[in-house]
Amino acid sequence: MEQEQKQNERYKALLADAREKIATADAAMHELIKDRCAAYEDVWQAKKALNRPVRDPAKEISKLLAARGQEPNDSVGISHRAALAALMRVSRMDQYRRMHAEMTNQDWALGKLISHAPTTMPEFKVAVNQGTKASYSAQAAAHLFPQARLLQIATFMGAAQQVKDEIAPVAVLPLENTTAGTVDEVYGLLEHMGLYIIASIDVPISHNICVLPGAKLADIRQVTSHPQALAQCSMFIKTMGWTERPVRNTAFAARDVAEIGDKSLAALASADAAEASGLDILPVRVANNAVNTTRFVALAKQPIIVSDANTLSVLVHLSHKSGALADFLSFLADYDINLKKIQSRPVPERPWEYSFYIDIEVPRDHPDIVEVLFAMDHELDRMRVLGWYKQTQVSL
Amino acid sequence: MEQEQKQNERYKALLADAREKIATADAAMHELIKDRCAAYEDVWQAKKALNRPVRDPAKEISKLLAARGQEPNDSVGISHRAALAALMRVSRMDQYRRMHAEMTNQDWALGKLISHAPTTMPEFKVAVNQGTKASYSAQAAAHLFPQARLLQIATFMGAAQQVKDEIAPVAVLPLENTTAGTVDEVYGLLEHMGLYIIASIDVPISHNICVLPGAKLADIRQVTSHPQALAQCSMFIKTMGWTERPVRNTAFAARDVAEIGDKSLAALASADAAEASGLDILPVRVANNAVNTTRFVALAKQPIIVSDANTLSVLVHLSHKSGALADFLSFLADYDINLKKIQSRPVPERPWEYSFYIDIEVPRDHPDIVEVLFAMDHELDRMRVLGWYKQTQVSL
Repeated sequence: MEQEQKQNERYKALLADAREKIATADAAMHELIKDRCAAYEDVWQAKKALNRPVRDPAKEISKLLAARGQEPNDSVGISHRAALAALMRVSRMDQYRRMHAEMTNQDWALGKLISHAPTTMPEFKVAVNQGTKASYSAQAAAHLFPQARLLQIATFMGAAQQVKDEIAPVAVLPLENTTAGTVDEVYGLLEHMGLYIIASIDVPISHNICVLPGAKLADIRQVTSHPQALAQCSMFIKTMGWTERPVRNTAFAARDVAEIGDKSLAALASADAAEASGLDILPVRVANNAVNTTRFVALAKQPIIVSDANTLSVLVHLSHKSGALADFLSFLADYDINLKKIQSRPVPERPWEYSFYIDIEVPRDHPDIVEVLFAMDHELDRMRVLGWYKQTQVSL
Repeated sequence: MEQEQKQNERYKALLADAREKIATADAAMHELIKDRCAAYEDVWQAKKALNRPVRDPAKEISKLLAARGQEPNDSVGISHRAALAALMRVSRMDQYRRMHAEMTNQDWALGKLISHAPTTMPEFKVAVNQGTKASYSAQAAAHLFPQARLLQIATFMGAAQQVKDEIAPVAVLPLENTTAGTVDEVYGLLEHMGLYIIASIDVPISHNICVLPGAKLADIRQVTSHPQALAQCSMFIKTMGWTERPVRNTAFAARDVAEIGDKSLAALASADAAEASGLDILPVRVANNAVNTTRFVALAKQPIIVSDANTLSVLVHLSHKSGALADFLSFLADYDINLKKIQSRPVPERPWEYSFYIDIEVPRDHPDIVEVLFAMDHELDRMRVLGWYKQTQVSL
């Protein structure tokens, strides 16, 4: 026992001693970092006068490769390269900050766009959406723009085109669905038509109980739908004691209810299918999970950045190297800026590149975000701000 | 002119001098890093004897916060914290490597799972898929397991349950679609049923031209479908000179073709809808883009890691802080390991956490990957290897 305690004391002393050595090295490193940063002013003045770029990828890579050549892939080598990469990242940011301080937002296209964007939402008279009047898109549009007349357009592209052609001021389209994933086509339209997200709203989505006009919940004995939909509503169906009648497709289920004409038969189907078959929808939530939510976005031709904007969406292109994404995220982490969402998407024409849709949680008055955007705008081959807007939700 | 050249020379000298100072600081830092790493052996021996954890988040945070307290949010402060965070990350990795070297894979659940996994794909007699015989799921299953008898199950969950209950050895389900996004439900099943991905295949998806039995391409004059589908096939329709007849729903389009009974009318619809309405599908590609691809995965109860596996899928839980993801990706970047895909997904019960589905590009014989997995397994609150498999594609 005493033996063990003695040994423990010895190891504690060993650990304290090792940590003391580490702390000494770290303190000396802190002084070296001060020396390093003291040279940044001269680097910037010289680069500015000589018209040299902030980022010199060839120089950085040769520096890191030289470091790699000097040592094996052990902790010294990996630490050395990781520390150098971090210092070079902050050194570039230092130059971007100095560059940004010397210009106005008018000298910089993205800065101009942000500083010129209206800060209040106009009272739109018209909003377009894809789908029918009964669709969730129309619900989302009505929540976001209660004063607007809603017009329905058959396709996502048609709706976006109306905005691009300035026929309508705003279009409301689904951007993602927690069950079905992302509606990638809408991201594509945002990108290719050069539109901006000006607002976003999360709408809970559920299957609908569709019945013959006049039928009530108490009339129902049997429910028909695709097996997948029946499974997603299994708890409600069990509670009600209904029997299940699986069919191939939810739209066929709605049609069957209309054709059979029996009040005791209901279909689980979309609002569109109910409308097409002349059925009523009962106001009951039937799905097991309320977590199936679709995010809708309002798209406009110019950005509107309201004063309580909380979400900045950007599209960035990066090489598929994990280091490229880590470096980009470290830029944000250096300023304690958090992600809300990240999604990669291969660039079809360029198999070794990825585009990332990134939602950043950041209020309009964040002290550093404009400098960070300035740096990102210069650092990345391709970055597009898709919008800086308020993200809200409907609770049903 | 001479004046300007003189000034240029002066700035070049200034830049060279500043870079010399930086290089001197970096060289001294390299020596300090060697001192730091020289203490790691003692840290590890002491921690092992004292049974202390590798990661001590409170200690690290207090170290970084102390650094923050020492200096403002300028380049010195940000560089200091970024360099410290990198050094501490590699220091933890150093301890994980030593810990891993002292144990066998048998002492470590994930290591055991990986080392025990079969390295050749068995000749499955049966494979289940969701949907009909004509579905893309069935096509994917036939490509992956040509010798297997295919059984169709109505729901994703039903198919996964067959595997969980050992009724079927393997299920083939869609994991993502480049147009519709991710089929999140299948990720959920992977997670909740504890299944593994053993193979993956990308299948190009297209709309189908559905006609009355016996009708030929030359008979068609008119095409009916949802406007969205008509738009996605607009180039083919224009080339053929067909007139468009938009309807509310692709399934209704197929039904209309069957009911109207006119050989000159075709529908753009799914194979399921064609089968339900008794229509034939003409073997023609009609969509504008071939990029609409669905990724299917084969799920089994135990992992199978074939010798030419190229993709490692993991599910990790991280806090929503951008630093947490940056730190995790830096772990991979330190070993030059690349991402293939990343997708965040909020954890419904825990609003400040995210889970990330990450596909890593890594062959089975990568020299460092097992150590990196060992570190990740210890470092993260929750990480699950979803599979390590070969990703292939069907070219139609």
